[in-house]
Amino acid sequence: MPDQSIPQARTPEAPAAEPVPGAQGISRRALLGTAGATGLALGAAGGAVGYAAAPARATALSSVGADRVMFHGKHQPGITEGLQARGHLVAFDLAAGAGRKEAAALLRRWSATAQRLMAGEAAPHDDTDVARDAGPSSLTLTFGFGHSFFGRTGLEKQRPGALDPLPDFSSDRLDKARSDGDLWVQIGANDALVAFHALRAIQKDAGSAARVRWQMNGFNRSPGATAHPMTARNLMGQIDGTRNPKPADADFDQRIFVPASGEPAWMANGSYAVVRRIRMLLDDWEQLSLSAQEQVIGRRKADGAPLSGGDETTPMDLDKADARGEYVVPANAHARITRPDRNGGAAMLRRPFSFHDGIDADGTPDAGLLFICWQADPLRGFVPVQRKLDRGDALSKFIRHESSGLFAVPGGAAKGEYVGQRLLEG
Amino acid sequence: MPDQSIPQARTPEAPAAEPVPGAQGISRRALLGTAGATGLALGAAGGAVGYAAAPARATALSSVGADRVMFHGKHQPGITEGLQARGHLVAFDLAAGAGRKEAAALLRRWSATAQRLMAGEAAPHDDTDVARDAGPSSLTLTFGFGHSFFGRTGLEKQRPGALDPLPDFSSDRLDKARSDGDLWVQIGANDALVAFHALRAIQKDAGSAARVRWQMNGFNRSPGATAHPMTARNLMGQIDGTRNPKPADADFDQRIFVPASGEPAWMANGSYAVVRRIRMLLDDWEQLSLSAQEQVIGRRKADGAPLSGGDETTPMDLDKADARGEYVVPANAHARITRPDRNGGAAMLRRPFSFHDGIDADGTPDAGLLFICWQADPLRGFVPVQRKLDRGDALSKFIRHESSGLFAVPGGAAKGEYVGQRLLEG
Repeated sequence: MPDQSIPQARTPEAPAAEPVPGAQGISRRALLGTAGATGLALGAAGGAVGYAAAPARATALSSVGADRVMFHGKHQPGITEGLQARGHLVAFDLAAGAGRKEAAALLRRWSATAQRLMAGEAAPHDDTDVARDAGPSSLTLTFGFGHSFFGRTGLEKQRPGALDPLPDFSSDRLDKARSDGDLWVQIGANDALVAFHALRAIQKDAGSAARVRWQMNGFNRSPGATAHPMTARNLMGQIDGTRNPKPADADFDQRIFVPASGEPAWMANGSYAVVRRIRMLLDDWEQLSLSAQEQVIGRRKADGAPLSGGDETTPMDLDKADARGEYVVPANAHARITRPDRNGGAAMLRRPFSFHDGIDADGTPDAGLLFICWQADPLRGFVPVQRKLDRGDALSKFIRHESSGLFAVPGGAAKGEYVGQRLLEG
Repeated sequence: MPDQSIPQARTPEAPAAEPVPGAQGISRRALLGTAGATGLALGAAGGAVGYAAAPARATALSSVGADRVMFHGKHQPGITEGLQARGHLVAFDLAAGAGRKEAAALLRRWSATAQRLMAGEAAPHDDTDVARDAGPSSLTLTFGFGHSFFGRTGLEKQRPGALDPLPDFSSDRLDKARSDGDLWVQIGANDALVAFHALRAIQKDAGSAARVRWQMNGFNRSPGATAHPMTARNLMGQIDGTRNPKPADADFDQRIFVPASGEPAWMANGSYAVVRRIRMLLDDWEQLSLSAQEQVIGRRKADGAPLSGGDETTPMDLDKADARGEYVVPANAHARITRPDRNGGAAMLRRPFSFHDGIDADGTPDAGLLFICWQADPLRGFVPVQRKLDRGDALSKFIRHESSGLFAVPGGAAKGEYVGQRLLEG
């Protein structure tokens, strides 16, 4: 590629064993905090094309492009970082004839691409230049394995029990073609072109080894659009994620990540992602009065405070009753049912994107939430909460689960390693 | 709506005659400059919920949310402002039985909504709260009338000749269901939730008077993602808009806007928008080598400089030949064919969004450009350039025009007026 000062091309099969310049192991993963505390990526480390090399603590607003998340680490990126403005979810199925060897080569290519793009560098080969001029913009790429992956690669014995199919929920209306998949990639960034660029690179890397099974686009608020940048509202207008576990919680790691000594060994420091495309029936929802909406949720729409009083972070008083003796937070309110201390202590971390794929022929919006939750064990995280919701959540009339996936997301790659190597070469 | 400090509800039919608090006529429309000069919205004027009221010159990065574009003005907003990170295009058809009276009431509602949302305030009635906590985020709403509008409202005599259907181009592959429409609304903002919120409000305002005909989503780079925030790359990786006319050009207004004395009188200070969904055949495009791509475009991909030398803003030397006597900028290069001084002097202003609506079943991306161009006269702007492109543009193999619309966008509303009032009550 003449005329371009991008790094040397690397053949798809070559290992990314040597450290890439600029990709120092400075772990500066900002931690998710939708309650407004700690959510933004901190500072701008070096390595991005055209950006200062000195690590510096900068405000979020001056570093939208330069903000960088490290590829290497104990955990994969894209789990505890703050919400990103743009996201792509994509599932792949291995091609006929592709097995463990091809999967290993693919994960090696993907890891090399992720490492470079997250550093703001060009893709290892045939970069499209779509992200050129931009910094990494907090780009993250996260890779996971679905239930079907293990049979196709002869690795059944390595399949975690936690990947057993989720139970059926009576309210599910799942489109199988947009559910599951051998491999799952989550892409997030604070710039839409950076995210799209990564999606193209990942798809190109797949080559003849895997084909796209489904792909979805999502978004969150832009950095700087609010005075409280991490106030995450969903498309119902509701503040979302208030009761997410906080990284500062003593048991955060235990709830979200498989322990270093966990089973199977290749999932050490990994996590399980449940992915649901949850359509919001906004025309119905928006016909409710504000107070009716608040009864459905159990929280005030304006500030997310529980109906029992206080502010967003005040614990909900489930027993508080009004003059007539009725619960102030109704028995079927969404926030009551999902309340962490009645569900094993919030054993999942929700980190969603909103989606909007246009307006259907009947005028209804094809919009809602790309619900993504992270947990050490889906049977203690997503499943018990969803079971309760399935039985009597006031919100269920206004949403529809349209697709579902469950993926084993291994721990982060060490230097010289690729994601999933401990599984594929174990 | 208890518990909320949003302004009083206003019934859909009530005129927004009185000035809305905070919506002062401070015209601070930043001017489009994709070459990097003047593109960003300047400063943050008052009026947005929770933001400082004092007009202040602020950097783009510190004012993503607070940046505000004025609704009232000589021209409608959304034409000369800098590119926005998120956009929605939506066309409506009037409902059966709806005529001039219903259209006038609808434009009155839309104008009231646009005025309030662009000031960062809640919608006039039943606000969804989706944009709550955010500033206006440079939101703009722009309204236009299609050819079919005039027949349905008995206003044929007011229909501009400039709305005559565009000629057929041999390369068109138009989906009629996603083309044209009685009414067109362009929504842009630097925050996706703010833009979505506006789309919902506009659709709700339509009520039973009009139904959505088609709707498309687009995006541009996030503010702050690049050191040169207005360097607009499209999804081919190409710098786009280099040769756009600049507001500082002496003949800018003349080329882009209908004169105050123009015909028909209701279009004074208006403009005509050509809207094309241009799909990019990225799998084919990305198989070209860098130099082959540059031959197709006639500019260097890295920096947008013409192949004849210089930098992005250097005039292209069309006659320059190489040692073999061949044009350095090939005869069928896109940038040669579209070169303004061979096409009546760039009589159109391009202000696009990229789009990406997922990946088709065969693995190809449904992505490209929501091409929007503005001109005083489509027969001097879009049409002659597109005719030339249709005959021999090297780029045509890599793109596909999938839908088309042409809309008459009246001048901006004066205080107490609604958009289109001079047509509908003329």
